Order: sequence, then structure tokens, then C-alpha cells
Amino acid sequence: MILFIDMDEVFADAYNAHIELYNKAFSKNLKAEDCLGREVWQCVPKHHQDSIRKHAFTDGFFTNLRPIKDSQEVIKELTEKYEVYVASAAMEYPNSLREKSDWLDLHFPFIHWKNRILCGSKHILSGDILIDDRAYNLENFKGRKILFTSPHNVHTKGYERANNWREVAGLLL
Amino acid sequence: MILFIDMDEVFADAYNAHIELYNKAFSKNLKAEDCLGREVWQCVPKHHQDSIRKHAFTDGFFTNLRPIKDSQEVIKELTEKYEVYVASAAMEYPNSLREKSDWLDLHFPFIHWKNRILCGSKHILSGDILIDDRAYNLENFKGRKILFTSPHNVHTKGYERANNWREVAGLLL
Repeated sequence: MILFIDMDEVFADAYNAHIELYNKAFSKNLKAEDCLGREVWQCVPKHHQDSIRKHAFTDGFFTNLRPIKDSQEVIKELTEKYEVYVASAAMEYPNSLREKSDWLDLHFPFIHWKNRILCGSKHILSGDILIDDRAYNLENFKGRKILFTSPHNVHTKGYERANNWREVAGLLL
Repeated sequence: MILFIDMDEVFADAYNAHIELYNKAFSKNLKAEDCLGREVWQCVPKHHQDSIRKHAFTDGFFTNLRPIKDSQEVIKELTEKYEVYVASAAMEYPNSLREKSDWLDLHFPFIHWKNRILCGSKHILSGDILIDDRAYNLENFKGRKILFTSPHNVHTKGYERANNWREVAGLLL
């Protein structure tokens, strides 16, 4: 069984990194709970939005992401049961490519380079299960679709959902 | 129709780059014609082989590749008729990721970042046609398979073959 797992906001915590960088830059106290149903840039004043959009193009942004709670442990177990591939729509951010590869080497060394995919669009992927935080990635996937909860997608309906990595373990292990 | 096109030795000339770097480093006069049916590293004395294996891990190697003859023109035409994706098994070479992205921006700007795939293995790709110089990539692809001729694969049998980009145009345009 081939299992694809998205990276940002599924096991790399980009969402909270955006918030932390924003709070630091503008001395604010934004919290993920304030953003439910929205992207971080949608939760700040208009004249601050560009600053958030620039994060992902900034050297070091992807290097410094934290693994999402329990992801290392559960994904390691999943690799023993499934053919696990990381599938990240990263091509928009050329600066992210090497950083993502190095980040995986550091935090997920058990995901072999043969099992890593950096792409632009995911509808070219053929496999059995896809875990992703974006409905537009799941939409056209021909297999089991699991929406991983991120603050921005809490109102998204119509998908099997995992709220955290313990729930993924419950569904797939 | 989704058309995947491999990068190295299909439209980025890695093979001749290996030969040129080797000739320069060891003051030799190796030619592609001397290597038919073999990888470049297999055509040099044992104590020089490591030097060739290191090329792909060297900064700048992928930046400096030349586009293969007629590839720019024909691939541009293909993008008007097919949904064209570049699919490069690049993950073994973390240094290559950014270089490949920048190289595409420079030489193939008409291939949008959404249509670029850097992966480790290609058997997760789902589409209609794959052009590749490696039989092991074509083998498990569920679609039309076109082997693009490179010096190393001249003896490979069992695949529809294109010897150059004019022949690809003849087959697909």
C-alpha cells in the first residue's frame, strides 16, 4: 500500500512558524486559536499581509520548522506497514527545496530519499492513501483521502479527518 | 493527456558534462562514442571512477548542464498539446534541487513550477506518457513509454525509442 503524506502543516509546523515570525516582527500576540478557518495572512491587518507572504520565500523558514507533535513516532511506525512517501508541493519556493531535504534528513532520517517527492501539483500521484491539510490536494486523488486538521481547515467538510498524529495512528495502524 | 519528461540525459545533457569534466581533470580525450552501452564511470580506469561519481554531488554541476539539441523548441510545442510535467529523480542529490529549479527557470521558463516534479522513484507517477532514458523508470509506468536515447542505453531493447528531439516531435506532435 502506497501512503503519501503531505509535509507543511501535516508534519512540519508552518502555521505556527508564520504566527511566531509575525508576532516577533510586529510585537503582537496572535494565536492559532484566533485564526480558525483562515490562513495566517488573513488574520492580520492588510498592511502586514505581505510580510507573512514573504516568509516562505525567506532562507531558513523551512529549516526552522518544528515537527508536529507525535509525527516522528507515528510516521516511523507507518513506514513499517506502508510504502510511505512524503509529497510536498514545494516547487513554488525554490529556496525550500534543499531546506526540506535537509530537514527530512535531520528529523525524519527513516524516510529514504527514494521516498521523497517535491512537486507543484499532486494530481499526478498514484497511490492508495493521501494525508493532506488542503482539500484541493485531496479532491482529485484516486484513493483514500485523509484531511489532517490545521487551523485553516477546521470548517472544511466532506473528508475523513485526523485531528492529530494519534488519530492517524488510530486510523492506519 | 499527461506527459512526463525526464530531465537528465533527456533534455539536460549530464552525460557529456561528465565526459568534459573527466577530460579536463585528467587531460584525457574520452568521447561519448567510446562509451556506448555504458555509464561514463564505467569507461574510465578504476582509480578515476570515484571522481566521476562525485560530479553529481558537486555544486554547480546541474547549473552548468547544456540543454539537449532541439529540446527547448520541441518541449515548448509539446506544452501546447499536452499537460507536460518534468519528472526528475533528483532527491539523491540535495545540491541539485535548487539548481534544477533555477536551470528550468533559465532554459525552460515555459514549464511552470506547478509542472515540475523532483522525486526519488517514478513508480508513483500517474499519467499517459513517460519519456525517460532509464528502462527502470519506464518499466512500471502504466502508460506509453518512450526510451530517449543516451549513450548508456543504446543496447536496451523492448521500448519505443526516440533518438533525439526531432524524433519525439515526429512521435507526439
